[in-house]
Amino acid sequence: MNFKIDNLQYCNWSRKIFEINRQAGLDAVHVTIVYHEDFDEFQNVIRLWNKHFKENPDLIFLGKDFKDIEKAKAESKTAIFFGFQNCSPIEDDIELIEKVHEKGCRFMQLTYNNQSLLATGCYEKNDSGVTNFGREVIKEMNRVGIVIDMSHSAEKSTLDAIDISEKPIAITHANPIFWHVAKRNKSNDLLKTLADSGGMLGLSLYSHHLKDSSNCTLESFCEMTAKTAEIMGAKNIGIGSDLCLNQPDSIVEWMRNGTWTKTKNYGEGTKNKSGFPNQPDWFLDSRGFNNIETGLKKVGFNSEEVNGILGNNWFNFYKGIN
Amino acid sequence: MNFKIDNLQYCNWSRKIFEINRQAGLDAVHVTIVYHEDFDEFQNVIRLWNKHFKENPDLIFLGKDFKDIEKAKAESKTAIFFGFQNCSPIEDDIELIEKVHEKGCRFMQLTYNNQSLLATGCYEKNDSGVTNFGREVIKEMNRVGIVIDMSHSAEKSTLDAIDISEKPIAITHANPIFWHVAKRNKSNDLLKTLADSGGMLGLSLYSHHLKDSSNCTLESFCEMTAKTAEIMGAKNIGIGSDLCLNQPDSIVEWMRNGTWTKTKNYGEGTKNKSGFPNQPDWFLDSRGFNNIETGLKKVGFNSEEVNGILGNNWFNFYKGIN
Repeated sequence: MNFKIDNLQYCNWSRKIFEINRQAGLDAVHVTIVYHEDFDEFQNVIRLWNKHFKENPDLIFLGKDFKDIEKAKAESKTAIFFGFQNCSPIEDDIELIEKVHEKGCRFMQLTYNNQSLLATGCYEKNDSGVTNFGREVIKEMNRVGIVIDMSHSAEKSTLDAIDISEKPIAITHANPIFWHVAKRNKSNDLLKTLADSGGMLGLSLYSHHLKDSSNCTLESFCEMTAKTAEIMGAKNIGIGSDLCLNQPDSIVEWMRNGTWTKTKNYGEGTKNKSGFPNQPDWFLDSRGFNNIETGLKKVGFNSEEVNGILGNNWFNFYKGIN
Repeated sequence: MNFKIDNLQYCNWSRKIFEINRQAGLDAVHVTIVYHEDFDEFQNVIRLWNKHFKENPDLIFLGKDFKDIEKAKAESKTAIFFGFQNCSPIEDDIELIEKVHEKGCRFMQLTYNNQSLLATGCYEKNDSGVTNFGREVIKEMNRVGIVIDMSHSAEKSTLDAIDISEKPIAITHANPIFWHVAKRNKSNDLLKTLADSGGMLGLSLYSHHLKDSSNCTLESFCEMTAKTAEIMGAKNIGIGSDLCLNQPDSIVEWMRNGTWTKTKNYGEGTKNKSGFPNQPDWFLDSRGFNNIETGLKKVGFNSEEVNGILGNNWFNFYKGIN
């Protein structure tokens, strides 16, 4: 059985987007539900999601483990897995990790772009690695079954996390630096270490992570995938599109600035291009999975490899979370 | 006019302790009011302090600036200045700095022992210095008038803070490493840089920071002070006793562990000596200022220098806070 999984979306959710994800044949989506929200604010977001589940039971349900991906496939629905792009909801309290897991959290980034209490983000000047609290948190995430996601983390912190974690970790949405130099993209060494430890890379379709931005071609993306597979093997690669459909630009401003600065930070953007970038025309939304399927075959991947990248690899990874 | 100031106490506050501080002739005390409390919890602590002020108006009042030290002297009371030993009350929100200042905060450590969102604590393995958020926070603390306190911070972070801050910073309670090697004590280079930038060191009377712990002699402490003055000059040194009178051992356990670990961390203590250490017999409480006065004269300080160290230096530093 083959599964299709997009392991990172942060859309302005609506029935229309859930329908698009069904049209794309997605059996599972890892959705970002919080960035800088604390535990109380996280609980408000859960209430919103409960409304989505109640209003769209024919399209989505809350996924807890890999069996829910099988169930989604059988019922032609999309299993929604909750994830955090920052560790804000656990505040400074190790006990909150079990609580966010109980409410559905299955992925948590140890950092967004800045330093967190746990590790260093990729936008800091210096990277001191995983902190004292971070070590304790990784142990607890391993215990309860939340995946350590280092997409927005700095390199030493990521290597530390791979080393400390007893379970494979994930970089749910990023691309290799060899293809496009960006603070958010990853070095060959790091990708190799990630793969050797059983970890997964979700390739991003967010223009700031793509060569030639929104003009990136499907061919270029698929050739990059082939080279990445030479480094990591084809089984440790999936898709984490980072789709932010229908989000207003105020959201990307908030993602970057949170409440930490009085001056404006443009993150991956610039003053003149501060909003969400356009998507490449072959991946306007998740239905672009079909184009990627065609493109991956063209650059020489066999069917098993293509199916792996489009979802089976993530499915296998989910089997090891709990 | 000469002032007596203890620039760090964290006692289990009672009328009895306020009386002792008056008997010691203290015109001002910088009191730690929070460690790991968030903004809401900080506000609860303020309520407790308002009760202290209401019940002991003959002994204490809330100090806002150096004029309140003069007022305390004139009225034979002790001005209480609020400080934080961690940045937890400002959470991840730059706007909260102005709010905590409005409620009386005049000192804030950028870190306790662990990494914070702002900088690295002295118990971390690696020190990445002041973070992106930390830079913004220092600017805002400078603007509203809260002193940057780096007593529990790691060295590079402290040097960064000195460099970034437009106002002199403080190490309110620590001693030099040359006298007693401890993670919490400071290097000669750091002390020199601190003094050159107009910053203050408050010498600690907490046994874990003392040579020979609670068996430390008054002579040894005063000789250390003389050597420190050779490095820093006598005008950049004061007292920050770190007195924790009448605190139960559960408090030091909480200071060290907060809510960040499921295993027990002993900080400066050990498994067998995990509680608060005994005070040296010449500084059982703030009335020991008299012994220090005698001791400092004995090692060769002149009256002006002694009066500086016992309070006038801190008084002059307070003049520059706002």
